[in-house]
Amino acid sequence: MEYKLPELDSGLYEEATRRLDNKTKPRGSLGYLEEIARRFVTITGNLEPELPLKKRVYVFAGDHGVVEEGVSTYPQEVTRQMIYNFLSGGAGINVIARAAGAEVFVVDVGVAGEVEAPGLVRRKVVSGTRNLAREPAMTREEAEAALKVGMELAEEAAREGAQLLIPGDMGIGNTTPSACLICHFLGEPPERIVGRGTGVDEEGLKRKIEVVRRALELHQPTDPLSALAAFGGAEIGAIAGLFLGGARNRIPVVMDGFISLAGFLVARALAPGLENYIFCGHVSAENGARPAFQKLGLRPILDLDMRLGEGTGAALASQIIETALRIYREMATFESAGVSKGREFAS
Amino acid sequence: MEYKLPELDSGLYEEATRRLDNKTKPRGSLGYLEEIARRFVTITGNLEPELPLKKRVYVFAGDHGVVEEGVSTYPQEVTRQMIYNFLSGGAGINVIARAAGAEVFVVDVGVAGEVEAPGLVRRKVVSGTRNLAREPAMTREEAEAALKVGMELAEEAAREGAQLLIPGDMGIGNTTPSACLICHFLGEPPERIVGRGTGVDEEGLKRKIEVVRRALELHQPTDPLSALAAFGGAEIGAIAGLFLGGARNRIPVVMDGFISLAGFLVARALAPGLENYIFCGHVSAENGARPAFQKLGLRPILDLDMRLGEGTGAALASQIIETALRIYREMATFESAGVSKGREFAS
Repeated sequence: MEYKLPELDSGLYEEATRRLDNKTKPRGSLGYLEEIARRFVTITGNLEPELPLKKRVYVFAGDHGVVEEGVSTYPQEVTRQMIYNFLSGGAGINVIARAAGAEVFVVDVGVAGEVEAPGLVRRKVVSGTRNLAREPAMTREEAEAALKVGMELAEEAAREGAQLLIPGDMGIGNTTPSACLICHFLGEPPERIVGRGTGVDEEGLKRKIEVVRRALELHQPTDPLSALAAFGGAEIGAIAGLFLGGARNRIPVVMDGFISLAGFLVARALAPGLENYIFCGHVSAENGARPAFQKLGLRPILDLDMRLGEGTGAALASQIIETALRIYREMATFESAGVSKGREFAS
Repeated sequence: MEYKLPELDSGLYEEATRRLDNKTKPRGSLGYLEEIARRFVTITGNLEPELPLKKRVYVFAGDHGVVEEGVSTYPQEVTRQMIYNFLSGGAGINVIARAAGAEVFVVDVGVAGEVEAPGLVRRKVVSGTRNLAREPAMTREEAEAALKVGMELAEEAAREGAQLLIPGDMGIGNTTPSACLICHFLGEPPERIVGRGTGVDEEGLKRKIEVVRRALELHQPTDPLSALAAFGGAEIGAIAGLFLGGARNRIPVVMDGFISLAGFLVARALAPGLENYIFCGHVSAENGARPAFQKLGLRPILDLDMRLGEGTGAALASQIIETALRIYREMATFESAGVSKGREFAS
């Protein structure tokens, strides 16, 4: 498979810069907010984004066979229980999405067993993955199907006018496959990337590192899709698909935390240059996020020690993205406000 | 003068922590958002803050005699022009305040000459300060009056139900007195603290550093109010007063950037422990902000290279503060959502 990304027009970036420079403020004095606005305009190819932004959070849920290695403090049933919590509006992502004006979709892409719930988007490609420490978590077909779920939902979102996509995740055990993928794609050692997830103790952390090390030795995948299949999980594949589908439709996707980073790396391996189509919502407090950001040269919008997942960090950052666009759209110019320019503008 | 701060009840902090720990998320996984919510509850003394938060921005405007030393790229008339821009809603702070749901008040506390404009809060204590490089910028009485303006407006805000106060500033030249105050209170050398402000060039920066060095040698104030009088300006004094008045009325004040930091340091010198009553909205891109934060052990909510002032960084951060409180108020508990607790909760 090949994923061709649309061309970005640097003329739009320059025009947006020109407009920002003419707002009543010292040039560049709104810092990264200005860069966010310029990048948004360039990715979408639209110099006049409509506000408020139509934002969508997709919380992809999946289960992980690797939980039998004792890599999480929570029982697997929590994945399913949290789906009900999402659907009734009580989870962290619901609260933050309401504050940010984002709509939340909950997608069963790989939960173990049948889940029936009103409002649930049913796109299951696997009924929980297999144990990545012993065998591939998914078949290549399952991995591809997971990717397709994300891509198709991005496509549908584009048709329905969405302007910003936020991938969220729910899956007890999913920091372990994510750590595998991050180690695999960045060539980092497990002890630098593996973290405590929901809160394993010192012994649990050692066990997780050992599981990741064994899995990396066992599988040694040779292409991005095999890597996704080997380590899983379905929700990570769907997140990767959302990144690809967003970029293809010129809708910026906001990376959330550790799981989202793993999905991004799968997608980026399939579509080099993908970093130019996304925003990094925040840097997770999970161990490996910061070194990965450094290696990739990514800048997070927020750095608040968050590590909940569900899309919470990205949804919070979406408020900042929207405010950056308001600056771009609504601030007065020197001319319109009758304000004198400084010497910095004289040249 | 002595400014006694109200007692903070650590029992409230603990109760808020207990409530947050029972939300459907791994303990502490919303990171600094949880600390923001806990601190808000502790400062206000209210376990059930009402939302949406009533937020007020006070943009204090003043002029500075030191501009005759060539320390700014903008002409002094811009202070006045920007007042009209604030009052007609076109400035950066207006846009961000609208996004954050905050009301903006514009206060003439020290603009040079008469300013007439509908909606302007007229509390002038000096018609532009004198040149701090040659003489004290204000008299002690003027400094005290400026402080009183901020304190009285905080008092009024408290009576009218405000729950979060944001000090903003407008004053061509005001990074120079701010740098003097920051150097004075933190014992830092000018070359570490003085920055480019609105954008002076290399030569202008050298000139600013020299002006600050001379002023520090000339005045050597021995108490906080003399320092404020020596270096100015009126808007910095009013900001200091807003910090003091906020704390006294148990309303959290959100520090903005470099000018706001200078005002905070004046207020903190008058009321040690003041850091426990405030939030640091962001760390400014102006040179001395980061070393000052390190020295003071302060943590900014945002770090986005902003350096516009006006209260913009703090107003942007106020969205995060409000979302943190929504988490605290609206998230489901393990019991209410029927979600199993992890092993971390077993003890």
